Amino acid sequence: MSEEQENMTIIAFSGDLDKLWPTMILSSTAAATGMNVTVFFTFWGLFPLVKEDVRITGKDAMTKMLAGMNAPGFQGAKLSKMNMGGMGRRMMRKVAKKGNLMPPEELFDICQDMGVNMWPCQMTMDLLGIAPEQMRPNLGVPVGAATALQMMSKSQVSLFI
Amino acid sequence: MSEEQENMTIIAFSGDLDKLWPTMILSSTAAATGMNVTVFFTFWGLFPLVKEDVRITGKDAMTKMLAGMNAPGFQGAKLSKMNMGGMGRRMMRKVAKKGNLMPPEELFDICQDMGVNMWPCQMTMDLLGIAPEQMRPNLGVPVGAATALQMMSKSQVSLFI
Amino acid sequence: MSEEQENMTIIAFSGDLDKLWPTMILSSTAAATGMNVTVFFTFWGLFPLVKEDVRITGKDAMTKMLAGMNAPGFQGAKLSKMNMGGMGRRMMRKVAKKGNLMPPEELFDICQDMGVNMWPCQMTMDLLGIAPEQMRPNLGVPVGAATALQMMSKSQVSLFI
Repeated sequence: MSEEQENMTIIAFSGDLDKLWPTMILSSTAAATGMNVTVFFTFWGLFPLVKEDVRITGKDAMTKMLAGMNAPGFQGAKLSKMNMGGMGRRMMRKVAKKGNLMPPEELFDICQDMGVNMWPCQMTMDLLGIAPEQMRPNLGVPVGAATALQMMSKSQVSLFI
Repeated sequence: MSEEQENMTIIAFSGDLDKLWPTMILSSTAAATGMNVTVFFTFWGLFPLVKEDVRITGKDAMTKMLAGMNAPGFQGAKLSKMNMGGMGRRMMRKVAKKGNLMPPEELFDICQDMGVNMWPCQMTMDLLGIAPEQMRPNLGVPVGAATALQMMSKSQVSLFI
Repeated sequence: MSEEQENMTIIAFSGDLDKLWPTMILSSTAAATGMNVTVFFTFWGLFPLVKEDVRITGKDAMTKMLAGMNAPGFQGAKLSKMNMGGMGRRMMRKVAKKGNLMPPEELFDICQDMGVNMWPCQMTMDLLGIAPEQMRPNLGVPVGAATALQMMSKSQVSLFI
């Protein structure tokens, strides 16, 4: 191992509530141990970064419909299984709270405070017709797959979540 | 870093339409930047490689039933969520088309043209009773987990999608 | 490459039957080729490690409900798709048996015999109120994300499954 700072890159693809936890827990933990951490939010994974009061309008009827079924923001995130119309999601959030596990949106803030790079996927923004001002503040400049790949190729740990 | 060519290996496990995009986008992008890219298609991930006119006959009633529920070919690929009996899939394909994002089957062809190694999983073929002539042309020789692992252990980037 | 033993680390997040196979096949194959393999069982991934006769009692009504919907043990594991109330799961197990693919619980035993490190996630155990004696025998000491990350950062292959 060299003296250089180690890198971890996570491709946050799913946007599911239960997968936001490992993404944010691993990111904050890695940042706390001095690693340079980057999360590339793409496809469904972009939705948590969209402001919760934004109604994704899209460019056309199709985009509108697809976007309309997937609520924006961390509060809109569903469980990948047993979501049961939102009941599983609420239960999971309560279980986490009782167990003193921070919700993913608070872990996200902590990650940002620790300098984790939060990169929105430009292509997903274009596809869904999302403008930068509709996203949470203090994100990185939107990038493409090539930039994410470049970071992964020099990362000791790369995960697709 | 050495002067050697870098490697990326993706285990394409899911076969979901929405996960075929990152698999093919990352593969084509990596190949375009000079990386040696390998995609190992296993379990559900094998289905997109099966010719669309193939009726997977299987070895017995069980295989037939399991295979019958999962349509072969890229056209058979469903969304991992919000598939809604195929409506989500069609919408996603339309959104992609309007946004000038190529469908995964076209990205697959481009990947092949750029020399991305497309490795079908031998074990999955055996399990489902799929013969090599029922698969798309120009794939690599079917291999097992050991070969995929060997490639991953010398890859700068390994992802399970 | 150095003379040192190579490492592979898998974050077993999903707990799905169909994802237990690649986790266990890759782990046993890597161990057989001399790699040092670690599997970190977290979130849904922890359930297969819980003894099948254990009724997860949880700390409160919420935990009880969440845990009650997800049966413990390898036998409780469902398919990530097409589970169809358990029919898909039974079919998949039959297809595997006919194809001479060992069930994941047997592959797990083999992995343990070959020295694969099986690490339960401490945080998940705390969240669900699972005591060490309710888990399968011969597991590693429960650890947190920091320990898993440390192992990943020196691994040639790290996967999130």
